[in-house]
Amino acid sequence: MTDTANSSATEKTLILTLSCTNRPGIVHAVSGALLEVGADITESQQYDSPDTGSFFMRVQFTTSATAEATEEVLASVREKFDMNLTVNDSLRKTRTLIMCSKDGRTLNDLLFQQRAGTLPIEIPVIVSNHLDLQPMAFFYGIPFVHIPIKKNADGTDNKAAAEAQLMDLVNTYDVELVVLARYMQVLSDDLCSKLAGRAINIHHSFLPSFKGAKPYHQAHARGVKLIGATAHYVTGDLDEGPIIEQRVQRVTHGLTAKQFVVRGREVEGSTLCQAVQWHAEHRVLLDGHRTVVFS
Amino acid sequence: MTDTANSSATEKTLILTLSCTNRPGIVHAVSGALLEVGADITESQQYDSPDTGSFFMRVQFTTSATAEATEEVLASVREKFDMNLTVNDSLRKTRTLIMCSKDGRTLNDLLFQQRAGTLPIEIPVIVSNHLDLQPMAFFYGIPFVHIPIKKNADGTDNKAAAEAQLMDLVNTYDVELVVLARYMQVLSDDLCSKLAGRAINIHHSFLPSFKGAKPYHQAHARGVKLIGATAHYVTGDLDEGPIIEQRVQRVTHGLTAKQFVVRGREVEGSTLCQAVQWHAEHRVLLDGHRTVVFS
Amino acid sequence: MTDTANSSATEKTLILTLSCTNRPGIVHAVSGALLEVGADITESQQYDSPDTGSFFMRVQFTTSATAEATEEVLASVREKFDMNLTVNDSLRKTRTLIMCSKDGRTLNDLLFQQRAGTLPIEIPVIVSNHLDLQPMAFFYGIPFVHIPIKKNADGTDNKAAAEAQLMDLVNTYDVELVVLARYMQVLSDDLCSKLAGRAINIHHSFLPSFKGAKPYHQAHARGVKLIGATAHYVTGDLDEGPIIEQRVQRVTHGLTAKQFVVRGREVEGSTLCQAVQWHAEHRVLLDGHRTVVFS
Amino acid sequence: MTDTANSSATEKTLILTLSCTNRPGIVHAVSGALLEVGADITESQQYDSPDTGSFFMRVQFTTSATAEATEEVLASVREKFDMNLTVNDSLRKTRTLIMCSKDGRTLNDLLFQQRAGTLPIEIPVIVSNHLDLQPMAFFYGIPFVHIPIKKNADGTDNKAAAEAQLMDLVNTYDVELVVLARYMQVLSDDLCSKLAGRAINIHHSFLPSFKGAKPYHQAHARGVKLIGATAHYVTGDLDEGPIIEQRVQRVTHGLTAKQFVVRGREVEGSTLCQAVQWHAEHRVLLDGHRTVVFS
Repeated sequence: MTDTANSSATEKTLILTLSCTNRPGIVHAVSGALLEVGADITESQQYDSPDTGSFFMRVQFTTSATAEATEEVLASVREKFDMNLTVNDSLRKTRTLIMCSKDGRTLNDLLFQQRAGTLPIEIPVIVSNHLDLQPMAFFYGIPFVHIPIKKNADGTDNKAAAEAQLMDLVNTYDVELVVLARYMQVLSDDLCSKLAGRAINIHHSFLPSFKGAKPYHQAHARGVKLIGATAHYVTGDLDEGPIIEQRVQRVTHGLTAKQFVVRGREVEGSTLCQAVQWHAEHRVLLDGHRTVVFS
Repeated sequence: MTDTANSSATEKTLILTLSCTNRPGIVHAVSGALLEVGADITESQQYDSPDTGSFFMRVQFTTSATAEATEEVLASVREKFDMNLTVNDSLRKTRTLIMCSKDGRTLNDLLFQQRAGTLPIEIPVIVSNHLDLQPMAFFYGIPFVHIPIKKNADGTDNKAAAEAQLMDLVNTYDVELVVLARYMQVLSDDLCSKLAGRAINIHHSFLPSFKGAKPYHQAHARGVKLIGATAHYVTGDLDEGPIIEQRVQRVTHGLTAKQFVVRGREVEGSTLCQAVQWHAEHRVLLDGHRTVVFS
Repeated sequence: MTDTANSSATEKTLILTLSCTNRPGIVHAVSGALLEVGADITESQQYDSPDTGSFFMRVQFTTSATAEATEEVLASVREKFDMNLTVNDSLRKTRTLIMCSKDGRTLNDLLFQQRAGTLPIEIPVIVSNHLDLQPMAFFYGIPFVHIPIKKNADGTDNKAAAEAQLMDLVNTYDVELVVLARYMQVLSDDLCSKLAGRAINIHHSFLPSFKGAKPYHQAHARGVKLIGATAHYVTGDLDEGPIIEQRVQRVTHGLTAKQFVVRGREVEGSTLCQAVQWHAEHRVLLDGHRTVVFS
Repeated sequence: MTDTANSSATEKTLILTLSCTNRPGIVHAVSGALLEVGADITESQQYDSPDTGSFFMRVQFTTSATAEATEEVLASVREKFDMNLTVNDSLRKTRTLIMCSKDGRTLNDLLFQQRAGTLPIEIPVIVSNHLDLQPMAFFYGIPFVHIPIKKNADGTDNKAAAEAQLMDLVNTYDVELVVLARYMQVLSDDLCSKLAGRAINIHHSFLPSFKGAKPYHQAHARGVKLIGATAHYVTGDLDEGPIIEQRVQRVTHGLTAKQFVVRGREVEGSTLCQAVQWHAEHRVLLDGHRTVVFS
């Protein structure tokens, strides 16, 4: 997370992330390979999970080598320890497709921060089942694709076709991350599986409290004194995916359920933006159904 | 919440709380009665609950009249509006019985703050099913009664007798409030009913998440990023009583379930002390199964 | 803060705020006058300041009378107690002029929330000394006036003329509130006096720490662990006006001063929006150089 | 921060901390030496300070070697890179002398947490210029030394003698850390220099706001909406030492300066305990007049 202003023109900042079964010698082997590419380590974190026996590492470093060349040098280490290992250029932005419905607060936060340069993502396309947020996409100069979900009189719907269309967009635009910014449709198990580990949802409650529909109304009925939001990876098991970030906001008896909804919008936006930022900075790794966050 | 340093020697600060079905004229009637006793209002809050149609009011004021005389003056207003109404002298401390088991953090917070004068309670007796915290009670000069809970070989236990002994203490010591400061026994429905509205429990999770046993271990397994504590009134429905206060604390992937427990202790203590303080300052009123907190 | 869905079509929610020297009988007199207009009080708060001897009150109520008629009924009470007293219709939006420079985060937050209906203001015009944010104003359909500040070679500038132009806009558009949303010019003492009590500034530090220029760089050099923002009324004494709201955000050693700036943007936006909301809901009253906030 | 329950009986958890001028090869050299002692790294963090060009590292690992043997193995690496380097056994507790005056809240928090095992310190002696807190020391079974500070009629005082007596205790008890838990005397520059980097103070404000005396009264007069506490290392320049931790607490217009003091006690205690814990876990390193905190 350091500036690289004083680096020479050809120096770049790379980010290495890896996970593997823990055993001695990992750090030494990795740091040896990094020395070979003249890496100057600026930030590094490691974690050994006692529950799963897995080892996790993130190293940020400057070097004149490319990400590809560095991966090459690390190939034998990767093989020896049977690692999941990737090297990314910190300047390369994560290609992110955003899905939304009618409520624009969360989308607005993401778009503003992306354009301000504080979220290292690029957004090739926005998808929505409604048209309400098209003007906002237009303002930010991002293609907007309307994929309505229709229920037919005979009980059938076009969901399968809509999800196929979405996956086409994911493939066409080389999408690496799908962000559900208050997209109000439940994804099919099949789509969830396809997007596992590369789709982030914001749930408008402090999970696991108030799973399911209308969480703010549930929270109000229960008389809670804090409401919250949870950003998590999407899995087939709805509202049960690995949690990336959670934040809360104080509420009082004086607020109605409707006002809980309004209050919650702010914390939803900040929670989701934080989760997307960490993901795009390659700070989030999966440890079973929990996350390791090297924030 | 103002100082009364410049009041004359006979002036006292009284606190009026009331609730009733909402209809016009309540404030005017109450303020008229308060004028009669020469009350100088220093703090006042009102709330009209749209869900239950109830009206709630708390007024803090200085006067030369006693609490009893002021209640007398308010008698006709009380009758007219069919109010629950009480007037308390702010210097009168709530007589509070504390129950605990082995973990002393929460008890320690309560005792220290009581002695420092920041919790307006007096503690005539501490009850525990274990002896571990007797020295702490002794240090603070408070009688400690050991009421062990024993399970017999035939599956019976002494719980009914133990609860009878507790109720004896409640009556003997004119106890107004029972605080369960990590008392690790489940109270019977019968006892819960008897203590309804005058017993506060601290639950070591951010309710309604992780009800039941070992909430920190549940939270760890779920991979949450915030843990919390909930102070609530005791009701027959375990972990479902009206919530008074909730607080949270950030945790990371690097902490074990055991370390969650340790981290949680701090937030448990501060949450419970805050709830007890508000109760003892007559700031908490019941609105169905929610609370109105005039903090 | 309650819904009024079940009110009859002609019922409106009014907000009464008042301040005066404290003496007995104020609440009774006010509530009597409110009874005359058939007011049903939904929320009320009072505060008696021990430092200044002033009394403050805010009452929210439903009635079929207009704000003007209600003020009329209260006229004799106002006179008797020499009150500052206003009655506002809760649906009437505060006419707000926003000033900004180049950074759009705070402006974006204000505009989005205004359009979403969560900030009870209307924005007739946006003023800036730069053109960068004109497209955003255009997107939200709000007139944008460019008033550049120019320094001449001889050391003179056009500041006086620029401020005169601003005051013309304030008058032309019946502006009730001026919000400085990261407007990077220091206002003259004269303009500050003219706008006293009706201009809110966001200072990008946790005042009184790091007054003056480049507060994030000062904070970084000092090695603080929390950064903050302060929303305050503008007064002639720069960065010394009455504080309305303050919020903080955690930072770590790993962040550069530049990253402090980025992190700070979020807390600046949320702090300023909160202050503007409270002001527009008539929840902020001045008690000397402090504020009473009936939140 | 992981459990070591499954380690063999002779395995211990060691903590290596180091700082040096940044250059390539540090991590590789250190991890190579750690491999030699069969270290299994469980947690590791590194930071390269762009401002000072220094490199900081903390590694926690299990090994069958002792701390001394591990330091031996690292000797050549230490020399090559001219490192400040220490290896500590995680079970060895930091010998801590606590100084206090009359207010016991902060002392109470430290003593309780130390005895509960959540603060890895041992406390051989408590020093105070008053006798008020002697019973608390007695309860926790810790020697209490009364070193009163007396001002004579001729303007002289016994401060130099008192500080000499303190330094005797520091030496006699092999004290590694001095904690000023609301010790209300200003230390001399000479003593500050002697204790540099090994004395932690709690200042009852959110520094650098409200330096000097009576910060809560200053804060109240200024009308702030958050109060805070700052734990920092002691330096000759009063209230200007490197900050370890800062926390805040919300306050309202309704609280008096005296109530600010009461509210502040809680945040002071939690802030100081956190700082002491991090120091004792060898998580705090000095980077000029800022701290690196590997929390």
